[in-house]
Amino acid sequence: MAEESADMSVKRAKQDEEDNGVSESAVDMDKEGNPDYISSLIPGWFSEISPMWPGEAHSLKVEKILFQGKSDYQNIMVFQSSTYGKVLVLDGVIQITERDECAYQEMITHLPLCSIPNPKKVLVIGGGDGGVLREVARHSSVEHIDICEIDKMVVDVSKQFFPDVAVGYEDPRVTLHVGDGVAFLKAVPEGTYDAVIVDSSDPIGPAQELFKKPFFESVAKALRPGGVVCTQAESIWLHMHIIEDIVANCRQIFKGSVNYAWTTVPTYPSGVIGFMLCSTEGPPVDFKHPVNPIDAEESQIKSKRPLKFYNSEIHSAAFCLPSFAKKVIESK
Amino acid sequence: MAEESADMSVKRAKQDEEDNGVSESAVDMDKEGNPDYISSLIPGWFSEISPMWPGEAHSLKVEKILFQGKSDYQNIMVFQSSTYGKVLVLDGVIQITERDECAYQEMITHLPLCSIPNPKKVLVIGGGDGGVLREVARHSSVEHIDICEIDKMVVDVSKQFFPDVAVGYEDPRVTLHVGDGVAFLKAVPEGTYDAVIVDSSDPIGPAQELFKKPFFESVAKALRPGGVVCTQAESIWLHMHIIEDIVANCRQIFKGSVNYAWTTVPTYPSGVIGFMLCSTEGPPVDFKHPVNPIDAEESQIKSKRPLKFYNSEIHSAAFCLPSFAKKVIESK
Repeated sequence: MAEESADMSVKRAKQDEEDNGVSESAVDMDKEGNPDYISSLIPGWFSEISPMWPGEAHSLKVEKILFQGKSDYQNIMVFQSSTYGKVLVLDGVIQITERDECAYQEMITHLPLCSIPNPKKVLVIGGGDGGVLREVARHSSVEHIDICEIDKMVVDVSKQFFPDVAVGYEDPRVTLHVGDGVAFLKAVPEGTYDAVIVDSSDPIGPAQELFKKPFFESVAKALRPGGVVCTQAESIWLHMHIIEDIVANCRQIFKGSVNYAWTTVPTYPSGVIGFMLCSTEGPPVDFKHPVNPIDAEESQIKSKRPLKFYNSEIHSAAFCLPSFAKKVIESK
Repeated sequence: MAEESADMSVKRAKQDEEDNGVSESAVDMDKEGNPDYISSLIPGWFSEISPMWPGEAHSLKVEKILFQGKSDYQNIMVFQSSTYGKVLVLDGVIQITERDECAYQEMITHLPLCSIPNPKKVLVIGGGDGGVLREVARHSSVEHIDICEIDKMVVDVSKQFFPDVAVGYEDPRVTLHVGDGVAFLKAVPEGTYDAVIVDSSDPIGPAQELFKKPFFESVAKALRPGGVVCTQAESIWLHMHIIEDIVANCRQIFKGSVNYAWTTVPTYPSGVIGFMLCSTEGPPVDFKHPVNPIDAEESQIKSKRPLKFYNSEIHSAAFCLPSFAKKVIESK
């Protein structure tokens, strides 16, 4: 079944992990039986070890741990790194660092919003740190921004430790809904949004439903004709099997255009992250040629923060894929 | 002085290293006082720690160490990793892994060679592993390929452990010169080559001269009018100060076009690597629009190995830069 495939991928990755003995050898457990990521490699460094990328780990030197907590959904940690600024970690996986968060937040937001004229109603699923909100707020055509984040602690932690990211919540157009994104979408009247942005973590843990077919069906229903969705869609270097499944699902569900784009984020595994960009049946959307370029100066005045990463050239370039990925994605 | 600036950058990085205490705390020394990279983190993992990227390290799980040696120029190691195939390490820094070497080798070669019509004489400086030769050999217009590598042990180790990379040496058009690239270039008659590819390691160790102004002057002299050079040019995320210096030097020396391009390579620090692409005065070269597209089928027949990464779309996309990098590079 298509909706089980993402799970299957994770199972495959878990099998790899067992084969490689990653979890046994590399992650210590603390007194409560939780993985103790801080002390697992060099003392004083944080290492990102996961069955999603077996056999490799990126480490950052820790200056100070600023927060460690356990919400109803996940382990949350914030630390001051020596060269990447403050770092937000969920269940042992880096979500944002102050040094490179611009690449992810700007691309996941402006790739969809610059591809349609005058977006007015936008929904963000996940994205509790507020960074996507900050970027959506640059678009003066936008009248209303809903965000549905499952984990209130992520929102609170971001407001406390990442004010330049959580600044997105200060925009008066934003309404925060704390709850399950899947349930929220089911209750949305048909054709409500111009754009939906799914800023999820990996398909292990609370985000796993966001990679399955029923979720994409709800997204399509919630969009107006010719509306667009952009979802976090993993790495072409590490997760082609997950990407294959997502692309196959999206081609069945979204009757407009279906595209894969990607960008560089140094602190994400393999250094890249991808996005699925799809549109519903209706006015055609050509994602590769943005019709709604964001005016750097206007956006700067509005948000008091210049774009660091996104521009119209890099928008189009993001859809150009290496041959090995192009072959797989275009065959779906 | 401009030619000292790359050195200055390294000094700055070294200062950062001392401030962060990376070398003291994280790299053990073996009995002979050499850094012991294998045992520096978790036993059984290789970790890449360097003053060039302070405060972070990428680690690969080691299945087996296949070779460790010390040449006249550097420490050389080959290991079998658990998920990236065989890995070549020089002075503790990953040069190639079997899993992602395609991205680097194909881009550093085809970006210059697809940008000019009918390249005939090509010089490779560095690139002792042979991967660039393999890619140059795909171009049927090429009649002669010189390679000047300083370290014979790199050539021998590659031939022994990386046959799919060192296969480049089997092409009858190749002549290997073991020696110093700087001296080799000085002896080259003016206007000899259509293209020069500088496949160097970082500007610490044997490759440091390859980042300085006198070297670029020799390259310009060795090229025909409208000839092209492509040099390894570090990461926009980590080394903007080095890149600034290289760009400033190149704008003074190359009177044709001067461009910066980049690509993803997961096992390089920050996950990306860049290239300086310049042309000498003469027939104009528009690097962003390749005039000599490589025919996938023809190249496949000739080399018996399909292109995995490069295509004409990704060629043009490689010149699109994030705003933060574009601003600095275009201001030089």
